[in-house]
Amino acid sequence: MTTEDVFGQIDPPQRLLMGPGPVNAHPRVLRAMAADMMGQFDPEMTTTMNQTMALYRRVFMTENRRTFLIDGTARAGIEAALVSLLEPGARVLIVRAGRFGLLLSEIAARIGADIRTLDVPWGQVATLAQIEAALVEHRPRVFACIHGDTSTTMAQPLAGVGALCRRYDVLSYVDATATLGGMAVCADAWDVDIVTGALQKCMGGPPGSAPITISDRAAEHIMARRHVEAGLRAGGTTDGVGTRIGSNYFDLSMVMDYWSDKRLNHHTEATSMLYAAREAARVVLSEGLEARFARHRAAGAAMTAGLRAMGLTVYGDDAHRMPSVTGVYIPEGVDGERVRDRLRMDFEIEIGTAFGPLAGQIWRIGAMGYNAMKHKVLLTLGGLEAALRQEGFTLPSGAAVDAALASYTASD
Amino acid sequence: MTTEDVFGQIDPPQRLLMGPGPVNAHPRVLRAMAADMMGQFDPEMTTTMNQTMALYRRVFMTENRRTFLIDGTARAGIEAALVSLLEPGARVLIVRAGRFGLLLSEIAARIGADIRTLDVPWGQVATLAQIEAALVEHRPRVFACIHGDTSTTMAQPLAGVGALCRRYDVLSYVDATATLGGMAVCADAWDVDIVTGALQKCMGGPPGSAPITISDRAAEHIMARRHVEAGLRAGGTTDGVGTRIGSNYFDLSMVMDYWSDKRLNHHTEATSMLYAAREAARVVLSEGLEARFARHRAAGAAMTAGLRAMGLTVYGDDAHRMPSVTGVYIPEGVDGERVRDRLRMDFEIEIGTAFGPLAGQIWRIGAMGYNAMKHKVLLTLGGLEAALRQEGFTLPSGAAVDAALASYTASD
Repeated sequence: MTTEDVFGQIDPPQRLLMGPGPVNAHPRVLRAMAADMMGQFDPEMTTTMNQTMALYRRVFMTENRRTFLIDGTARAGIEAALVSLLEPGARVLIVRAGRFGLLLSEIAARIGADIRTLDVPWGQVATLAQIEAALVEHRPRVFACIHGDTSTTMAQPLAGVGALCRRYDVLSYVDATATLGGMAVCADAWDVDIVTGALQKCMGGPPGSAPITISDRAAEHIMARRHVEAGLRAGGTTDGVGTRIGSNYFDLSMVMDYWSDKRLNHHTEATSMLYAAREAARVVLSEGLEARFARHRAAGAAMTAGLRAMGLTVYGDDAHRMPSVTGVYIPEGVDGERVRDRLRMDFEIEIGTAFGPLAGQIWRIGAMGYNAMKHKVLLTLGGLEAALRQEGFTLPSGAAVDAALASYTASD
Repeated sequence: MTTEDVFGQIDPPQRLLMGPGPVNAHPRVLRAMAADMMGQFDPEMTTTMNQTMALYRRVFMTENRRTFLIDGTARAGIEAALVSLLEPGARVLIVRAGRFGLLLSEIAARIGADIRTLDVPWGQVATLAQIEAALVEHRPRVFACIHGDTSTTMAQPLAGVGALCRRYDVLSYVDATATLGGMAVCADAWDVDIVTGALQKCMGGPPGSAPITISDRAAEHIMARRHVEAGLRAGGTTDGVGTRIGSNYFDLSMVMDYWSDKRLNHHTEATSMLYAAREAARVVLSEGLEARFARHRAAGAAMTAGLRAMGLTVYGDDAHRMPSVTGVYIPEGVDGERVRDRLRMDFEIEIGTAFGPLAGQIWRIGAMGYNAMKHKVLLTLGGLEAALRQEGFTLPSGAAVDAALASYTASD
């Protein structure tokens, strides 16, 4: 059998991915994955794991000792957090303001949690007063919400939420998949118990690894549910008293043991994804968190200014929009999918479609991680303008790019 | 902040990994991961996913339409299979002949299954008669076993097992993590319902992706438990009637929808791992399955011959030993960990330690995937001989390498 029989080398198009993620990865991250494997418990491997933990403490702006990776995509991190925090029947309060809020309740339902929700219309965020009222009304064991929900492009403000949860003795979880590395995700300042993220959005890496950080308080809660595998049990190893965690793969008590100095075997760490996560964090920290957040803000502002100059209506209010992804209404009479196809086929630029109530209503245009750059914003606006013009939509030619450039000049 | 502050580039030692996996990845697989991301629903991405499915049908020797990847390490594939097959309370019969058989019951316990076991002493395998007697005694809904358990180095014979399961109307699951790509894993010939594997052993790739193949019968059983996420539900989408699957991430009904022409959004496919899995399969199929299995057999035979020529005792019986990993008793009076350290530090060769009842009793020496090669077997035997001599163990110098070379000559 020849190589030709089996489809040829991987050769993806050189396409600019300006959707809600995954986006183009930083070349340094891609190159890091070409490094060869290490033995799982070789000292170089455990050193690399420890370095990665140290790097992600800085990315999450936390002192949490337990800061590491879940081997799976972003929702693997979410499920690991929820299945480890929530026993069947435990009450959880979930803020639902978009598709990923719904995902949290979907996952919690499978755990058998007692689910209470704070439902917010898509495009809005919950106020601190609403959250406190819901905590008082429901008295949950766990509070869970999304930081940036790409389905609505809104970012939930989280200052003060951790303090509220402490006041009512509630463990807190935040999904920062779409924001980590693009805007401040500060586990300690928020005083939130578990935060999870992803690589393929603002971190500029590939999907497939979910960084997680866990407070001592949450770790203690989870370790009380710890059960060691029979195949590994040694003399003196005792099990916890809590209800056994409903998943082996996502049992954070075992994953914490694996990443601790105990190095108790669990899964085989996804070595190439570890390299990718490590390098993505090195790129992020070399740039500097504040500089990186400013770069995302500038890109988001320029994108918004450009879209408005084109005569389009941007979705949602400016106060809570994520800098990294912008929703924009598809103009009346324009076929949104035809415009996306033109952008992809003529310009090799991808922008995003939408989910649920916003499907067919808006496009979602990202400027994340390695793609939150001036030239990529300008090229995307120029391409979108041309695609709209080709579809017969009347607009002031050149205005979008000029407005985006002016926005960049103003933010310099 | 400078790059130096954040630990420097990834730079693993150039070490020969001759343990039970992960092993060194094929350079083509490592290079494939350096390709950039694709949009999740771009036609090039869905084409790549379909090609990967076609490749793994050939790797698993199956016509199963539903053959794809689980985004996680090998045990993610195991958990996806078991949590999707087993409802809480459903009876499962598990063959336990080593650590990974114990892992199956560990995972099944968390699902709340009614677990029955066929316990076999470590180092042995179950006979077809034992399996039939256990099926008759327990009348399970699902049968589960490990093909090759690296903890014991034994491979469970599976010819006839699928037919037995059909006769008693039992769904069957086989974990082929350690054997896929190294010896015949033939889902159709075995007539087994779900088989899962891994990349980091005989497939010559990195850990972090679990290939899976699912029969129509198993798919039908699982689809009866299907529930679509609220955030994605469209008019006309109906849910199944069975008990909802206890995990979102591992819900094979949703993962099947995602990999089907429906392309219903679930996780974000781990793109770099998809490239790795695709390239690993291309390498395997370019070599040819039969040639690859022969290469593993030759390496295993030479390793065994060399170890015996050194005066060591090989673990377990030759009839059922996996070619890809060989257990060997640590000689009386020799400190096994000191020998492993010498091999690592002086020769940059890693061999494996052992789990459970075999911990401190045997080393496990692999010759898997890209490492199942004559020169790597010879270098490992030469290094082990020197390390043993340095530790004061008396052996016939040179005999191991000569015996391995003779074994290779005999198998030419």
